[in-house]
Amino acid sequence: MEVRVTSSGELERVISALESIVTPAQVLLQGHDDFEKYGSDETEDLVFLPDVVVRPETTEQVSEILKLCYRERVPVTPRGGGTGLSGGALPVHGGVVLSLERMNQILEIDKENFFARLQPGVITQIFQETVEAEGLFYPPDPASRGTCTIGGNLAEGAGGPRALKYGVTKDYVYGVEAVLPQGEIVRFGGKLLKDVVGYNLLGLLIGSEGTLAVITEATMKLIPLPRFRNTLLVPFNEMAAAARTVPAIMRRGIIPCAMEFMERACIKAIETHREMKVQHSDAAAQLLIEVDGNDEMQLEHEMEIIAEECDREGALGVYLAETTAKQNEIWEMRRSAGEAVKSISPYKEEDTVVPRARLPELVAGIHEIAARYEISIISYGHAGDGNIHCNILKRNLEDSYWKEVLPKAIEEIFRLAVHLGGTISGEHGIGYSQKRFLSIALGPTEIALLRRMKEAFDPLGLLNPGKIFSDS
Amino acid sequence: MEVRVTSSGELERVISALESIVTPAQVLLQGHDDFEKYGSDETEDLVFLPDVVVRPETTEQVSEILKLCYRERVPVTPRGGGTGLSGGALPVHGGVVLSLERMNQILEIDKENFFARLQPGVITQIFQETVEAEGLFYPPDPASRGTCTIGGNLAEGAGGPRALKYGVTKDYVYGVEAVLPQGEIVRFGGKLLKDVVGYNLLGLLIGSEGTLAVITEATMKLIPLPRFRNTLLVPFNEMAAAARTVPAIMRRGIIPCAMEFMERACIKAIETHREMKVQHSDAAAQLLIEVDGNDEMQLEHEMEIIAEECDREGALGVYLAETTAKQNEIWEMRRSAGEAVKSISPYKEEDTVVPRARLPELVAGIHEIAARYEISIISYGHAGDGNIHCNILKRNLEDSYWKEVLPKAIEEIFRLAVHLGGTISGEHGIGYSQKRFLSIALGPTEIALLRRMKEAFDPLGLLNPGKIFSDS
Repeated sequence: MEVRVTSSGELERVISALESIVTPAQVLLQGHDDFEKYGSDETEDLVFLPDVVVRPETTEQVSEILKLCYRERVPVTPRGGGTGLSGGALPVHGGVVLSLERMNQILEIDKENFFARLQPGVITQIFQETVEAEGLFYPPDPASRGTCTIGGNLAEGAGGPRALKYGVTKDYVYGVEAVLPQGEIVRFGGKLLKDVVGYNLLGLLIGSEGTLAVITEATMKLIPLPRFRNTLLVPFNEMAAAARTVPAIMRRGIIPCAMEFMERACIKAIETHREMKVQHSDAAAQLLIEVDGNDEMQLEHEMEIIAEECDREGALGVYLAETTAKQNEIWEMRRSAGEAVKSISPYKEEDTVVPRARLPELVAGIHEIAARYEISIISYGHAGDGNIHCNILKRNLEDSYWKEVLPKAIEEIFRLAVHLGGTISGEHGIGYSQKRFLSIALGPTEIALLRRMKEAFDPLGLLNPGKIFSDS
Repeated sequence: MEVRVTSSGELERVISALESIVTPAQVLLQGHDDFEKYGSDETEDLVFLPDVVVRPETTEQVSEILKLCYRERVPVTPRGGGTGLSGGALPVHGGVVLSLERMNQILEIDKENFFARLQPGVITQIFQETVEAEGLFYPPDPASRGTCTIGGNLAEGAGGPRALKYGVTKDYVYGVEAVLPQGEIVRFGGKLLKDVVGYNLLGLLIGSEGTLAVITEATMKLIPLPRFRNTLLVPFNEMAAAARTVPAIMRRGIIPCAMEFMERACIKAIETHREMKVQHSDAAAQLLIEVDGNDEMQLEHEMEIIAEECDREGALGVYLAETTAKQNEIWEMRRSAGEAVKSISPYKEEDTVVPRARLPELVAGIHEIAARYEISIISYGHAGDGNIHCNILKRNLEDSYWKEVLPKAIEEIFRLAVHLGGTISGEHGIGYSQKRFLSIALGPTEIALLRRMKEAFDPLGLLNPGKIFSDS
């Protein structure tokens, strides 16, 4: 699956052909004001410039572009909102960046069948707000929802805090239209809650990181919008106690829509970054617990049970957000955790996930690894899912030491997660930045099978090359 | 993917090798009392005898058996409970039937993480009752749950009445161990609510009808067991009114755990078959509506809303099952629908699915087709999912007429379902009996891609040959 470097003569031919498929205004070249943003996403400080950016507006244009690139043997990297955290949208072999940003229409909200059809370039939050205005609900809410797109969410298999109760992106995709690497348009599924016709290729495309096909339309399931929610902030003196509270609540028959966790250093970073004071900011960890539903009485009853279980595990207090404004404030605090922690110094963010009862062991183990390598790590994430984002911070380490120990520390963290029954990415993907670690999570037989899938879709390896699989 | 016929000399060598992989008691040959049952499942009256049946007890034995069959180029057909309705377990090319019935252990029920690990031969109902005794819940409940197995449910992507609220089998599978056609053992996923490492091959295996790999262990998600349920039976004078009630209830923010539908002729067949009287059995259609939850007050409130909506759509009455015994009676009635209808005469059962709001059009269209061909069709199924089982009955038709019109009528019904945005199977699979109709649901590009998947897993086409794809 080696990819050739594009020569400048070939490039001119490709650009001219692109300009005949779309309008010249949809083709961006080096020198254009917006061009450079297509060379990076939100993954650390990585930059790979493409040769050309094309922004199609129809499925047929996507198909023609892929046919052209296949014929000319030019790599193509699809791109959504550019908010990815594993480098999935980076054109690491140059070539064409295929941005879906102009395919941003919500095509239909079907209130009889509780489905929506939409194009990949729709911003996730806009989609959520549009369906909520109709009394419907699209639960998956990655932290970047204000700027990420549905297409990127599908490509990466995005998650978020509500996964515990409501599941992740893949649980809402019931139909796709997609363009294969050689330009053929395929359609699977529809507004159907049950469909067992042929293999589940729809499920295979979700989370395939733009390496198997370019999704050009999705049919997403909606559910009734819960009318009420209650949000609690619960500080604990011990990380382990916070973690034990999670299954204790679920054993009482309650599935909160979120159980988020922030450790002390994360809260401190938020206080500094946002110039605010958080209650009990010296507590070892805080849980943000949210319940939602349509019956206020029942929610109050659930909150009483949750408070009981928090008390039993030794919570320092159970603080209810009394108003919607206060709820939003708590969520803004939580959503700013990544930005606050990353503002401290250069960093590397990991996305480990374990069975949720093993969270205390994972967090303790991460701190033990940090201490041994004399590095700084700050964790926060989705306690209900066992999905922890740990940020390794450079702070004042020498460049040479940082470069030497970073991969060793990451490898140890990943081996620990796998040893605890977990894996190396819960919702960020493998992409470019994690591919060297893939073999920690999957054995050679599994990886060989993944490669056979890639070859069956993309025999020349032109679609989003340099991702998932290590080059060796 | 042509499969050779096994010669008798080869067969003897294979049998002797099988007897060295497992014990001789685990190998069954023609003449054994139990042998013939492996030649059929619950699909009409189809019978294809295998050359030999092997019943392994470990994953390693499954691996050795597949290696042997690959080496000897012998077809292998995996088999669960033998309750399939599309012929998926039929050894249509002879060879080896690989029965998973002896791998029937529930390996672990993890109450901290809400997951179970189990072998494929566990009977679905036994699994459900075992986890319910622990206060946990495994919702998917195909009508055959008393005899079907989890392995078969995974292979076929089984559904059932609770799919509307709780989803289908694939929504509960978070980890698998499987053996590939050449004998390699692979593992994907685990006790993880989020996992985006590599392609979603786990999702690809679920519903692949035993044609890509043999699943030898599954990790299944559990949820808290709802403590209360209420069951209603609601007769309507008009099929269309019954169908309109379904989205009307959901628009009120309620997702019942089941909304089942039976038309008049189905109720009449149940009355005859079970020698019982059903209230309002002359009504055009009856809905069976069930809600469940942990809060009795809330369920009562939901039932009031449901009754309101039923009234608004012109229900002839809303009858609550006052006791658990009465609830069970209603469900036994519903579960006996298939048997009751099929006892009337030879039949062919279809498993069409459409967006639920189009159900009235599907049912009306089916009756129009039936009238035009002068055949008898009785429908029942899952109104909440738009998934209708329509049984075409031979009654007193001449054999020659039946053989001539049956495929024409089925093709028209399938084209109607696809025209309404639906497909040809919601939960039974394509298998052997529906493969000639696959191209009604999927285009040539989609089918070509499915075939590439099959070839990537099974280049010699030895695992469950003669299924899904038509031979041409």
